[in-house]
Amino acid sequence: MKPETAYAELRNFQIDTAYYHSLGALAGWDQRTYIPPKGHAHRARQFAALARLLHQRRTDPRIGDWLEALEGAAFLDDPAAPETVNVREWRRAYERARKVPEDLAVALARAQSEGESAWEGLREADDWAGFEPYLKNLVQLTREYAEAVGYETEAYDALLDDYEPGERAARLQEMFAVLGRESRALLEAIMASPQQPPRGVLERDYPVDVQASVVRQIVGRIGYDLEGGRIDPTIHPFELAVGPGDVRITTRYYPDYLGAALFGGIHEAGHAMYEQGLPADHWGTPMGEAASMGVHESQSRLWENAVGRSLGFWRYFYPLLQENFSALADVSLTDFHRAVNAVRPSLIRVEADELTYNLHIMIRFELELALFRGQLEVADLPGAWNEKYREYLGIEPPDYKSGVMQDVHWASGSFGYFPTYSLGNVYAAQLFAAAEKELGDLEEAFARGEFAPLLAWLRENIHVHGRRYQPRQLVERASGKQPDAETLVAYLKRRFGILYGV
Amino acid sequence: MKPETAYAELRNFQIDTAYYHSLGALAGWDQRTYIPPKGHAHRARQFAALARLLHQRRTDPRIGDWLEALEGAAFLDDPAAPETVNVREWRRAYERARKVPEDLAVALARAQSEGESAWEGLREADDWAGFEPYLKNLVQLTREYAEAVGYETEAYDALLDDYEPGERAARLQEMFAVLGRESRALLEAIMASPQQPPRGVLERDYPVDVQASVVRQIVGRIGYDLEGGRIDPTIHPFELAVGPGDVRITTRYYPDYLGAALFGGIHEAGHAMYEQGLPADHWGTPMGEAASMGVHESQSRLWENAVGRSLGFWRYFYPLLQENFSALADVSLTDFHRAVNAVRPSLIRVEADELTYNLHIMIRFELELALFRGQLEVADLPGAWNEKYREYLGIEPPDYKSGVMQDVHWASGSFGYFPTYSLGNVYAAQLFAAAEKELGDLEEAFARGEFAPLLAWLRENIHVHGRRYQPRQLVERASGKQPDAETLVAYLKRRFGILYGV
Repeated sequence: MKPETAYAELRNFQIDTAYYHSLGALAGWDQRTYIPPKGHAHRARQFAALARLLHQRRTDPRIGDWLEALEGAAFLDDPAAPETVNVREWRRAYERARKVPEDLAVALARAQSEGESAWEGLREADDWAGFEPYLKNLVQLTREYAEAVGYETEAYDALLDDYEPGERAARLQEMFAVLGRESRALLEAIMASPQQPPRGVLERDYPVDVQASVVRQIVGRIGYDLEGGRIDPTIHPFELAVGPGDVRITTRYYPDYLGAALFGGIHEAGHAMYEQGLPADHWGTPMGEAASMGVHESQSRLWENAVGRSLGFWRYFYPLLQENFSALADVSLTDFHRAVNAVRPSLIRVEADELTYNLHIMIRFELELALFRGQLEVADLPGAWNEKYREYLGIEPPDYKSGVMQDVHWASGSFGYFPTYSLGNVYAAQLFAAAEKELGDLEEAFARGEFAPLLAWLRENIHVHGRRYQPRQLVERASGKQPDAETLVAYLKRRFGILYGV
Repeated sequence: MKPETAYAELRNFQIDTAYYHSLGALAGWDQRTYIPPKGHAHRARQFAALARLLHQRRTDPRIGDWLEALEGAAFLDDPAAPETVNVREWRRAYERARKVPEDLAVALARAQSEGESAWEGLREADDWAGFEPYLKNLVQLTREYAEAVGYETEAYDALLDDYEPGERAARLQEMFAVLGRESRALLEAIMASPQQPPRGVLERDYPVDVQASVVRQIVGRIGYDLEGGRIDPTIHPFELAVGPGDVRITTRYYPDYLGAALFGGIHEAGHAMYEQGLPADHWGTPMGEAASMGVHESQSRLWENAVGRSLGFWRYFYPLLQENFSALADVSLTDFHRAVNAVRPSLIRVEADELTYNLHIMIRFELELALFRGQLEVADLPGAWNEKYREYLGIEPPDYKSGVMQDVHWASGSFGYFPTYSLGNVYAAQLFAAAEKELGDLEEAFARGEFAPLLAWLRENIHVHGRRYQPRQLVERASGKQPDAETLVAYLKRRFGILYGV
């Protein structure tokens, strides 16, 4: 077969797979928004059938034939050309998928699905003893998975590779050591500061329909294309890309708390603007996909925090809030801005502030690493969890559900995922700093309602590249240096230094 | 291969196909409800990819192997056993699919999709000349399709078979001759009657949110399980079954017209109750599928008309309407009941009353038949259309869009579909009469709010059978006689005789 023919056939095959996957994506959106109560059992079976189809296609031996025909093809010489990028990533995915024995893949998929289902009830019942065997099984199967796909230095790297291609545990340890030390020092100074933000500003009467209208206006104004998306209410906010022209977000509305809908909405809009910026003509191939979980998170965090919690942002948007919410009539811009940046150690990751969030992540990363380095047993996880919360945040969970059982990630076997959240913050800080260096004072632009220059910069430096570069390389090209904790630490010190006078 | 093994493998294969199809069904629902404006292009490509997958699976040669292994199997001796029914229908579908050459299937699918797309704009522009070539091509390809799948007597029967298995054009002609003659005589008498219903009762101020709440209460009360479904607003109402526990309907709300939401809602709920009554443990196989388009329509028409436009129904529900709509304060139950049964010749099929509706269908059926019997050219269709409207309804369309171009069916190549609407009315009349014979005066039951006995009768006599019987056989078993026009004519004469004193 001519390599050009092989490429065309392989590409068509992969794009069709992507269409089937995207039908599942839509079904996932529906499952978390408008599905009737009795529709869940059928939906689970739809997903299982789709998973069978996708597994067949990902391990289809024809992919091997096409890839073989493409070896050494002259038109794949330029490593940054879309064709080269696609073939590289298709080869990587295919080899990885083929390395996992069918029975292990099936056992792991079942354990992940059963673990997540069981966790829902067991967490509710605060039943660690009931959960432990699921987790033990998942850790064991995930170890086998890591051995099957292989690694250079340690098993955890094989897991990381699924979420953050090319990332290494040892490098993360270094990065997080600095970030952890500096964050804890800053947290101590903040806790000791007499200059505290006003309390209860966000916990007032905020009518839900007005919140929905305000969030819509804000995310539309910063650049989320609502003609190519929609916002719906859910319990757990998420962003979901069905395909070009159809990138949806959800957020959560509390009648007595503004923070969730507002920052949840901006966060998901950040994810969505990334998807809306991916090259549509490469849809269904790696060139049209997000680079990694960490890069995805960098986009949501950048818009939620660096933009959405800045004073410049609120100089522009606070009048809109005051017009819409009588609860804010007596709150000054300064006090509102301080309220949305309040720092306080807490037990629940998803409710954590910008500073302590990374400490929650580090705790999880260190525990995962200890598990997969054989330094910690699943049975000892709750004790180790509580010890780390005492050490890093000075607080201790009163139960399992606000402790070791709070997140779905481990229950669904997603080991190696957590660190990408903090990587997202690290990337975001570097990208924001680089954009500002090129574009000038961004907060002044925000204060004038100008968000398009920042979005254009992200489009040009991140979005258009799809999976062309590995995450570290992408961030280095965009920001001028390899990702490390330095820029994020400087950003946190500056932001909270001003707010808390520390 | 042992026949038992062949059956199990074939069944699993077909059920997986059904899951993929049902992902497409959900995407179809979304396309007509919540899709973002820019999402349509991607959705069309998703459907095309899914169509390729479904076509591959429907013609997969393994089906032939399994069917071969099942020939003469002892466990398929009972013709009414689920396994026998499934194998019979799988064989029928497979043989039919294999008879159509790949290039004809592709050409037809493209012509159907292009025809429908083109029609939208051309109808808007009232451009028959632009539409004619699409229609010519569709008729030609559909002729080739009929020849490919084969028939006993005439090509049109091959088309009918896709919608109403076993139905024949010659039989329909007989049935419709009676129905047409009697309907026109009744219509003449009605038009000449001095006893006319009050005008404008439904065209008053009906707040849309109140309509939504009222429709929801009514369809829930008659038996549509809302925990296993949902109602959303759309432009063209439809019912869509994603799967067991997930059967959705939509309806259309006008602020100044109550009829559309109300009767559209009850009509779609009738379809939905059928789907909710199909045996869930046979889902994904013919035993879990609706018997035909005509039988499906019989369920929606029965609930919309025989139930929803009856006096008994309104004796129970009219107080709810009067409580909710101040527009009805001065309208008596009798006048409201007469208003919802107003008969008047009109140009648009979907807005027609219960009596004239069948005349609209007959016109289309006769024209289709003439086309496929070679007695009419596409070019002569508009003239023939207008002539028949003058003859049957005494009115003539002023333009193409309220005439020959009003329906999507021909534009999408669905020839043979129209007669199933009137067949639905014929079946409905027989089923309703049979149910009443067994259950006693149904209108008195409706007046007490009792709809469960009728639904239970339909469940037992129609729904649970899936595709076990061919439509005529199913209706005969349930109603005691082969479908003919007689019962429907008697029903129409009785209903409109009382209302119009004719």
